[in-house]
Amino acid sequence: MTNDNNIVTAAMLAIGDELLSGRTKDKNIGHLADILTAIGIDLEEVRIVPDEQGRIVEALNSLRQRYDYVFTSGGIGPTHDDITADAISVAFGVPCEHDAKAMKIMGDNYASRGIEFTESRQRMARMPRGAIHIDNPVSTAPGFNLENVYVMAGVPSIFQAMLDNVIPTLKVGTQLLSQSVNCPFGEGSIAVALGNIQAENPDTIIGSYPKYENGRFSTELVVRARDAAKLASAVSAVKAMIANLEATQLPR
Amino acid sequence: MTNDNNIVTAAMLAIGDELLSGRTKDKNIGHLADILTAIGIDLEEVRIVPDEQGRIVEALNSLRQRYDYVFTSGGIGPTHDDITADAISVAFGVPCEHDAKAMKIMGDNYASRGIEFTESRQRMARMPRGAIHIDNPVSTAPGFNLENVYVMAGVPSIFQAMLDNVIPTLKVGTQLLSQSVNCPFGEGSIAVALGNIQAENPDTIIGSYPKYENGRFSTELVVRARDAAKLASAVSAVKAMIANLEATQLPR
Repeated sequence: MTNDNNIVTAAMLAIGDELLSGRTKDKNIGHLADILTAIGIDLEEVRIVPDEQGRIVEALNSLRQRYDYVFTSGGIGPTHDDITADAISVAFGVPCEHDAKAMKIMGDNYASRGIEFTESRQRMARMPRGAIHIDNPVSTAPGFNLENVYVMAGVPSIFQAMLDNVIPTLKVGTQLLSQSVNCPFGEGSIAVALGNIQAENPDTIIGSYPKYENGRFSTELVVRARDAAKLASAVSAVKAMIANLEATQLPR
Repeated sequence: MTNDNNIVTAAMLAIGDELLSGRTKDKNIGHLADILTAIGIDLEEVRIVPDEQGRIVEALNSLRQRYDYVFTSGGIGPTHDDITADAISVAFGVPCEHDAKAMKIMGDNYASRGIEFTESRQRMARMPRGAIHIDNPVSTAPGFNLENVYVMAGVPSIFQAMLDNVIPTLKVGTQLLSQSVNCPFGEGSIAVALGNIQAENPDTIIGSYPKYENGRFSTELVVRARDAAKLASAVSAVKAMIANLEATQLPR
């Protein structure tokens, strides 16, 4: 885990055959990335694995040792292909069992709707021993947190609602501030000057993202830094570079 | 590598800080998943890593030993943050050098447009020694293939065009056929019956994907199999299950 310079790190483990077959286009990775960046946690790795216990266990154990936090999506429903709670339990070496609090809130909820709380539905109350609930305001069945791992649903509206409940409980680092500058030149025209600016501004991260539209390239330059003054200084240098290129009328 | 039962496996390594910060919402993973599924290659894992050489090398070496094919996206432009060619070279333990063929086609292309073929632009002609070109019909600078690794651009239109060039060269396995059945019941109502169908149809993979719309759940059931008859048999069982539930008027 990296804790120098007030940096808090995270990984995401997205679980599900449907993400790998193309049936479902993941929406949770981008949402988690947006939220973590906004609050000052650095998402440093994402993995997508199928609904296979061994693969989930292996990936989770690798990620949870390496990062401050791991967020998972998917596989916590009542059907036979929902194996995340079991896999997380195996990864931690603890039993997966029906949680008393989850049984109570889910039982009450089904009773109020006149729906039988079947064994299948009770599967959704199973979690690793010692896990803490993550409330599910959408459809009751909770996610859970064990040590630095947060296990949430794959349905985006539920993933997002669970994440909203988790966010206030997380320690955060110094936010990585970001500023974008649109550059009308392609990367080939700016690479040397931009590389020099990066070298002269070592406490910033300067990203160059080519866009290809209507047969020509332009570039979005993104400067990131944890210090506002250093960010502003590098952004000024980038803007000066663009102004200088415009004056020389280099090919765009 | 898994080659039993005519199965061909693949992984994707998406490279780029912008995917982890949320600035860019990846579009290449879903596209690759769709294409590979259609031609009979099983995408079994995806990783997203930042623009850091050590992280790229580690992930690539893990994936290329495990799967028949690895496809990468991102980091092959001319700017300082484009480090994929160097990282792949390090992973394979070969020098990263200007490729003569790439220098020629790029040099000719820039000359025809009256643009100087600067050292920055020449960076895009660098690849690991021994690599084979992947043609780039969009913007000339090639991707490359080394052993079972295919290195392509991050810009989706270029990634897709490069992939189109790669697809005909790949060995493929028996396609995993797929059929979807919409189910008006939530997972809690079908889990036991569906689990039984899965148990009775061991050569199929039955996925259950909850949808939550307008305050109620329904389910998309996806049956997959490499054998058409086995697929049809399991789909029939799923449809019979739904008809049976409709007859009993269980809560949906």
